[in-house]
Amino acid sequence: MTVAKSVTILGIDPGFSFTGYAIVKKELGKTYLLDYGYFKLPPSKSLVERVALFHDAIDLKIKQYTVTELSIETPFLGKNAQNFLKLGYLRGILYLLSSRNNLILHEFSPTQVKQSVTGFGGASKEQVSRVLYTLFPAITHADKYDATDALAISLCGLWQNKSLLNIK
Amino acid sequence: MTVAKSVTILGIDPGFSFTGYAIVKKELGKTYLLDYGYFKLPPSKSLVERVALFHDAIDLKIKQYTVTELSIETPFLGKNAQNFLKLGYLRGILYLLSSRNNLILHEFSPTQVKQSVTGFGGASKEQVSRVLYTLFPAITHADKYDATDALAISLCGLWQNKSLLNIK
Repeated sequence: MTVAKSVTILGIDPGFSFTGYAIVKKELGKTYLLDYGYFKLPPSKSLVERVALFHDAIDLKIKQYTVTELSIETPFLGKNAQNFLKLGYLRGILYLLSSRNNLILHEFSPTQVKQSVTGFGGASKEQVSRVLYTLFPAITHADKYDATDALAISLCGLWQNKSLLNIK
Repeated sequence: MTVAKSVTILGIDPGFSFTGYAIVKKELGKTYLLDYGYFKLPPSKSLVERVALFHDAIDLKIKQYTVTELSIETPFLGKNAQNFLKLGYLRGILYLLSSRNNLILHEFSPTQVKQSVTGFGGASKEQVSRVLYTLFPAITHADKYDATDALAISLCGLWQNKSLLNIK
């Protein structure tokens, strides 16, 4: 069995308003936060253009950091079925990018992500953020939840990662 | 105002089981059915691989026939929210392909498509097919509804097409 020497995970919290992202790398037992933040798709552009911009922005991050794995959350149907469907557009793009860049794709429920980061599946966004502030002092309270949510998703991908079990 | 001399419309009825497609061209007042049919995404492949296969199959048709416009139906939320979300993956790919190939994208409700083809928004699949058999004798009763649905969607895109109003 081949065991990866290092992994670089891109966690994404996709949205047409704000997409949060966070890139963490684990190498020789250490975890590094390489980049995190969010980007906004201009509402003045058509949905077709925004889907393409989303593709290009994520693809750039994948290539810039030689990402090896993607981590995303499984969405639940909310009150607005059309928003739920549109979230599917962005997920479809992430599936395509996974295939094109040979990335391992991890999907977790929101409960799994909160459980993994805080030990409690019903944790609030504030509780999740507080754990992240402790782990990564570079993160400030001014950061948007889109970015910290994405970081929680990428850490969940890291901590649930079977290919890392043998790395000390 | 520039008026297109001809349009080539790809109508798509996307699905992970069967994706129907139909390509119609209008030039000098005549309508040609260039290609139609369906393809199946292998259930043995992962969702990530199937999304990429869907992308490549549609992209190939676009390039093979120099498609200028895409026509799709707006889905409604059925009983299975996860299937609805997965349909979003394929639509996201169609949006990306629209942008990449500079295609005009048309979206119609199922009622608009049926209304346009049969004159009755509540028409059955059989009634839609019957009109198509009359228009295009090449189509046989053995063709799957996925293919005839896609043809109805592309014809709706053609008949609702404002850029063609001045072409005789």
